[in-house]
Amino acid sequence: MILIINGPNLNMLGRRPISVYGDGSYDDLKELLNEWSEINKIDIEIFQSNIEGKIIDRIHQLNYDGLIINPGAYTHYSYAIRDALEILSIPKIEVHISNIYVREEFRKNSVISEVCNGKITGLGFKGYLLALEYLKEKI
Amino acid sequence: MILIINGPNLNMLGRRPISVYGDGSYDDLKELLNEWSEINKIDIEIFQSNIEGKIIDRIHQLNYDGLIINPGAYTHYSYAIRDALEILSIPKIEVHISNIYVREEFRKNSVISEVCNGKITGLGFKGYLLALEYLKEKI
Amino acid sequence: MILIINGPNLNMLGRRPISVYGDGSYDDLKELLNEWSEINKIDIEIFQSNIEGKIIDRIHQLNYDGLIINPGAYTHYSYAIRDALEILSIPKIEVHISNIYVREEFRKNSVISEVCNGKITGLGFKGYLLALEYLKEKI
Amino acid sequence: MILIINGPNLNMLGRRPISVYGDGSYDDLKELLNEWSEINKIDIEIFQSNIEGKIIDRIHQLNYDGLIINPGAYTHYSYAIRDALEILSIPKIEVHISNIYVREEFRKNSVISEVCNGKITGLGFKGYLLALEYLKEKI
Amino acid sequence: MILIINGPNLNMLGRRPISVYGDGSYDDLKELLNEWSEINKIDIEIFQSNIEGKIIDRIHQLNYDGLIINPGAYTHYSYAIRDALEILSIPKIEVHISNIYVREEFRKNSVISEVCNGKITGLGFKGYLLALEYLKEKI
Amino acid sequence: MILIINGPNLNMLGRRPISVYGDGSYDDLKELLNEWSEINKIDIEIFQSNIEGKIIDRIHQLNYDGLIINPGAYTHYSYAIRDALEILSIPKIEVHISNIYVREEFRKNSVISEVCNGKITGLGFKGYLLALEYLKEKI
Amino acid sequence: MILIINGPNLNMLGRRPISVYGDGSYDDLKELLNEWSEINKIDIEIFQSNIEGKIIDRIHQLNYDGLIINPGAYTHYSYAIRDALEILSIPKIEVHISNIYVREEFRKNSVISEVCNGKITGLGFKGYLLALEYLKEKI
Amino acid sequence: MILIINGPNLNMLGRRPISVYGDGSYDDLKELLNEWSEINKIDIEIFQSNIEGKIIDRIHQLNYDGLIINPGAYTHYSYAIRDALEILSIPKIEVHISNIYVREEFRKNSVISEVCNGKITGLGFKGYLLALEYLKEKI
Amino acid sequence: MILIINGPNLNMLGRRPISVYGDGSYDDLKELLNEWSEINKIDIEIFQSNIEGKIIDRIHQLNYDGLIINPGAYTHYSYAIRDALEILSIPKIEVHISNIYVREEFRKNSVISEVCNGKITGLGFKGYLLALEYLKEKI
Amino acid sequence: MILIINGPNLNMLGRRPISVYGDGSYDDLKELLNEWSEINKIDIEIFQSNIEGKIIDRIHQLNYDGLIINPGAYTHYSYAIRDALEILSIPKIEVHISNIYVREEFRKNSVISEVCNGKITGLGFKGYLLALEYLKEKI
Amino acid sequence: MILIINGPNLNMLGRRPISVYGDGSYDDLKELLNEWSEINKIDIEIFQSNIEGKIIDRIHQLNYDGLIINPGAYTHYSYAIRDALEILSIPKIEVHISNIYVREEFRKNSVISEVCNGKITGLGFKGYLLALEYLKEKI
Amino acid sequence: MILIINGPNLNMLGRRPISVYGDGSYDDLKELLNEWSEINKIDIEIFQSNIEGKIIDRIHQLNYDGLIINPGAYTHYSYAIRDALEILSIPKIEVHISNIYVREEFRKNSVISEVCNGKITGLGFKGYLLALEYLKEKI
Repeated sequence: MILIINGPNLNMLGRRPISVYGDGSYDDLKELLNEWSEINKIDIEIFQSNIEGKIIDRIHQLNYDGLIINPGAYTHYSYAIRDALEILSIPKIEVHISNIYVREEFRKNSVISEVCNGKITGLGFKGYLLALEYLKEKI
Repeated sequence: MILIINGPNLNMLGRRPISVYGDGSYDDLKELLNEWSEINKIDIEIFQSNIEGKIIDRIHQLNYDGLIINPGAYTHYSYAIRDALEILSIPKIEVHISNIYVREEFRKNSVISEVCNGKITGLGFKGYLLALEYLKEKI
Repeated sequence: MILIINGPNLNMLGRRPISVYGDGSYDDLKELLNEWSEINKIDIEIFQSNIEGKIIDRIHQLNYDGLIINPGAYTHYSYAIRDALEILSIPKIEVHISNIYVREEFRKNSVISEVCNGKITGLGFKGYLLALEYLKEKI
Repeated sequence: MILIINGPNLNMLGRRPISVYGDGSYDDLKELLNEWSEINKIDIEIFQSNIEGKIIDRIHQLNYDGLIINPGAYTHYSYAIRDALEILSIPKIEVHISNIYVREEFRKNSVISEVCNGKITGLGFKGYLLALEYLKEKI
Repeated sequence: MILIINGPNLNMLGRRPISVYGDGSYDDLKELLNEWSEINKIDIEIFQSNIEGKIIDRIHQLNYDGLIINPGAYTHYSYAIRDALEILSIPKIEVHISNIYVREEFRKNSVISEVCNGKITGLGFKGYLLALEYLKEKI
Repeated sequence: MILIINGPNLNMLGRRPISVYGDGSYDDLKELLNEWSEINKIDIEIFQSNIEGKIIDRIHQLNYDGLIINPGAYTHYSYAIRDALEILSIPKIEVHISNIYVREEFRKNSVISEVCNGKITGLGFKGYLLALEYLKEKI
Repeated sequence: MILIINGPNLNMLGRRPISVYGDGSYDDLKELLNEWSEINKIDIEIFQSNIEGKIIDRIHQLNYDGLIINPGAYTHYSYAIRDALEILSIPKIEVHISNIYVREEFRKNSVISEVCNGKITGLGFKGYLLALEYLKEKI
Repeated sequence: MILIINGPNLNMLGRRPISVYGDGSYDDLKELLNEWSEINKIDIEIFQSNIEGKIIDRIHQLNYDGLIINPGAYTHYSYAIRDALEILSIPKIEVHISNIYVREEFRKNSVISEVCNGKITGLGFKGYLLALEYLKEKI
Repeated sequence: MILIINGPNLNMLGRRPISVYGDGSYDDLKELLNEWSEINKIDIEIFQSNIEGKIIDRIHQLNYDGLIINPGAYTHYSYAIRDALEILSIPKIEVHISNIYVREEFRKNSVISEVCNGKITGLGFKGYLLALEYLKEKI
Repeated sequence: MILIINGPNLNMLGRRPISVYGDGSYDDLKELLNEWSEINKIDIEIFQSNIEGKIIDRIHQLNYDGLIINPGAYTHYSYAIRDALEILSIPKIEVHISNIYVREEFRKNSVISEVCNGKITGLGFKGYLLALEYLKEKI
Repeated sequence: MILIINGPNLNMLGRRPISVYGDGSYDDLKELLNEWSEINKIDIEIFQSNIEGKIIDRIHQLNYDGLIINPGAYTHYSYAIRDALEILSIPKIEVHISNIYVREEFRKNSVISEVCNGKITGLGFKGYLLALEYLKEKI
Repeated sequence: MILIINGPNLNMLGRRPISVYGDGSYDDLKELLNEWSEINKIDIEIFQSNIEGKIIDRIHQLNYDGLIINPGAYTHYSYAIRDALEILSIPKIEVHISNIYVREEFRKNSVISEVCNGKITGLGFKGYLLALEYLKEKI
């Protein structure tokens, strides 16, 4: 099973600036991912929380074979999520919907990247699908 | 309705150093605000949490016309609260009870200020009332 | 008496970018303040100068009970005005019309804040009135 | 009573890199501490949470005479926990299992140390016991 | 047609450290990409040069509909390549084979990311294929 | 009319180090500029002051069609002059007699450049004449 | 003879953002310069390359009496071009078409300025002509 | 004649914090200096202004043989006063009443020191007399 | 045998500020340590020097099984002591009497910590005893 | 065979400042090296280019047993040359003719040193000969 | 008795660059000081050592009523000497012969100044005499 | 005579990590150097001390014609040794056994390099011999 974790404010997709995030809602994203799951016959679970510690709790359950994480703003300062990810030996991919490099300075730094296998940024919802494609072959 | 959010440790007012925060307790603050509400016939809700993600959850409910936020220590690093505030198009004001500029270096930086309309600092409990006065005319 | 000091270029209000400063002129601001003075029966004096040293000279006269200061660009480097303010034991409030935190990087730093009681930013001309409300009770 | 707080990911001890944390599990640690408690006839409570705000909530209860805290990754950025600790006037000790100075750069900074009485790092589980020894004489 | 540009030293793949770049040679990469081209019936051109200015010359020809670029070490300082990319209005993706965030500090900064649509790092040769999948739908 | 503003110490030209500023006096400079004015039949006014606020006062008069400013040492810290210049919509050129880039580190930064159209440095008195040539066509 | 060197991407003028560079093409620039050459009876040579080392090779030929150089993006990091220029004892002027001070942060630094006599920025194609005017008198 | 320049706020001596500046007033200082002048039969002039440009104007008069300057807060940012001092070839001494190294961080930097012969700090009013002793032998 | 090294100025304990170091003298400390030695039947040697190189010489003798070092101010810059410690493979503990994190900025950095096993700070003389307890089990 | 690579502007030796580089020309250097080659019966090849990528191309040929490289100004920023050198497992020595530590600040940093075995600076042409002596024994 | 401490290399005065230190030798300095002592009937002791720890040992003897210290290069990094000085409650003055502000960047920082009463720099040997004059009145 | 100075911890060669320093002992090094001395008929003296001030004392004796110095960890902070070296007008060479650029960040900075003629690093004991070769011709 592949676990897909979305961090704070991602549940508000569709309400955040369209010029940055596109006009898809969070339900659209979930639908897209579930569709991929059905076609590819690979179980996925989509988890969203605004609470840093809850995301860590979910990571600790260790009941998945691959991980996609979009930590939202926690990307930039949550060393606690970083430590939770570091424990895992399964493949992990960091995904960001928007191109974080053309936005505010603080968005350029990720404390998560060092403990993930790779990172996909700026490719919209499609970024999640490409990450799933990658994991499909690794798990 | 105007939502007033108080972040971590503000529930302990009265226990924190009097030289910095004055000698009013958190109950005193709430009473003061409710009094204003009654006199001005404007509904308010006072919300306090020590949990970053719970503050974000509350912001997401979007059932208010103006926002006053004193994010406590989250002021200095919670990009997640920042992103939650950025979504809102209603008037938002950041308030701090003490003069954060005469305290530790780290208190001088706010990651919230860029996404609020304005900021009132150092005027004690009175700062909340002035913010309410401002919002009264804008909502 | 409450002294209100406005620093460099504030006399040009109405000519400065409307998106940043609103469309009120400096005369509009003075009228607003004088109106408050009459209603509240509290004397005010409005002083404006582009010359750093003249602002210091005015502060040195010590013939007022409360001070509101918008030091304009001197906010960011005039340690001389800072030293002049530091001498005062009356209540002092720093006011900025615009939200200085969404503008150029250099505007985020104030060398004045440490020697004032509090600060109001981003609330337009209304910021001056709220500062007057605060001082009304303290002087 | 002495309260022992363990922050995020410490519940996963035994799963984290052995070269850094040794091979003891979190249960081993709890057993060791409880043993000390029995021998020394001093009550202890061991509290663990991955949620920053829950740790703050627990600190606020103020029903203990001494505090040992290993804030895990929150050590490096939780000014909110720092503020909660600052309120306390009882003796407080910061403990880290590993030598944080030979690890990543970000682990060298603690925002907690300024508000604790002292700090023990790099001495493994033994660090907790030494902290208890210290507190035994102070409470 | 999709243009795939590889910068300095990528021609030496297979000779560079296997722990970082995997054991595929540059010929292996080219074969993989050409295979994708045939299967997907989309023309590609693979261009490699160690000379910064030659890469710019190639970009200037403007005879392609999508661009994948792995600028090698030029990623970190070639503002000249950056300016060449900025002119383009077609979709552009930055690809890195290894996870640049676990390597030397200087590799964490890319001067190219701001002018590309997105970025894929750390997914090995597979990163190129995912980029092609993305471009397939955009051109 | 073209206004030419010279900031602090420029009145002492001829007394300042010849290796840096050449051996022309301030009177020589004025003569040169007036000569150009006569030949080109374009009115100019040359204004010099050592007082930051007086320079701002002069800028505020708005009775000119083009501006040349050599702010002397105010170049490096006068955000107040910067704000005064920002108001203007006429063409503005910053001029420096010496090559400020081969001198002390602090001279490399100009807080004025962002609000001028262009800048000419290191070309001696000739720099003023070239600026006039440019403005001749723009006003 | 006056040599005019244009660095990377300047051959694409007309394709680069008009708001920054104006709408003139590189051919327009060359025509303008050649026109000046004819009128003033001074030979010029216009050289453009995207390759850093080729620009250095051209500088090394030493067959000119004055130099105008617009090093494009190499301005910000080519210490190699800097060293080539340093050898020359003839007059050298750095020219930039756009006002580099209102653009990205990295464009504010020039490693070339210290070894040129002077610099003209932000005055469009006219900047080259003013530089020629200056050199006309010096060579 | 020896010129003694005192910068902004020094006229308020006696009103500034006694723990920092001692309890002497500005009149006391003047008396002390005049006394020395009489005893030593050396003319002095004491000049004070809060206006940066007026201090520069006074320096420009060049009618003195030695200079003592306490630039007050201008010490830390007035490159304009620095440039005025640099022109002088007579002996110049920077004096500060308090030990500026135990005060705020910004007071540790002086932009004046590089262009003076020497500096005396922290020795109270006595510092001026020692400076006069030094100049007595040099002029 | 356990060697206990005390660096510069520690011989003056009792003369240094009591609020920082407590009121124990250096003789008190030695007595305390010798007492522990007798009770625990473990030889110790207490060595103090103000001379960096003498401390290094003592470390080089290698005739001990465990090391406690309080390097005093050398903590912050003596890379030479650091190198001497790095050679040792026996257990080493860094001890500081006071909480160095609430003092001057420079005291927060230790160049020694990376080459010791662990560190105890802020627990007064008791810190030495806890370090001895730790070493007792390791040697 | 030992390959000796000289980077940009070294072909101009003899034209560069004598106080820094001595008065030997590039031909003198080549003669000196060839002489050594003959006496020591070890083949050498001397390669010079101003083009970064050409230097990389030459390194890639891998037909030598030892390498001496003086990368000229590329020393300070060419991560591309660095990557090319990193691939090599033969002994590599970085040589600089002048003492780069007494020159401009930017010359103090080398991005090449980490991937070479050693470095010789400031010993003039003799530095190349000493490097050859070293390599003679290692290849 | 007044103790005068001179740090490393000051014994070599007369051999150090005359343009910086003047042409007086260390014996000249000692003579000058002893002369003052005789005239003023105040005992002095002049102590010089190149060994940091020996200077600390001397300070610890506490048998003097005032202290003049020129710590030479230890000024810039000896926190150990700083700590030794901090213990003293007698008046202490830091003296430097040359104007350290016009020399290398590292000479601008003193770690000693915060724990001395005042500082005299740039006034040559005379600086010691002025310091003695000051102490004469304080002891 | 050539003086060879070795700083702190170099006497422990053979005990320091072999991967960094090779497996030669300090006696091996001395033997190697003495051998060279005999063969080349040039007197040498080898001096080692862990005490900074003793190294300075030795330098002050000035009874040698050339100097080789490996200051060990003092390389990175001893401005006092730097000042001692600066006095010398004979040729001086800094030598390091290991490649200091692949080690800890702090080892990259040398405060000594600016006052030596040249530097040899990373070539093991051979580095001393090459330095001797260089000096042989210069003295």
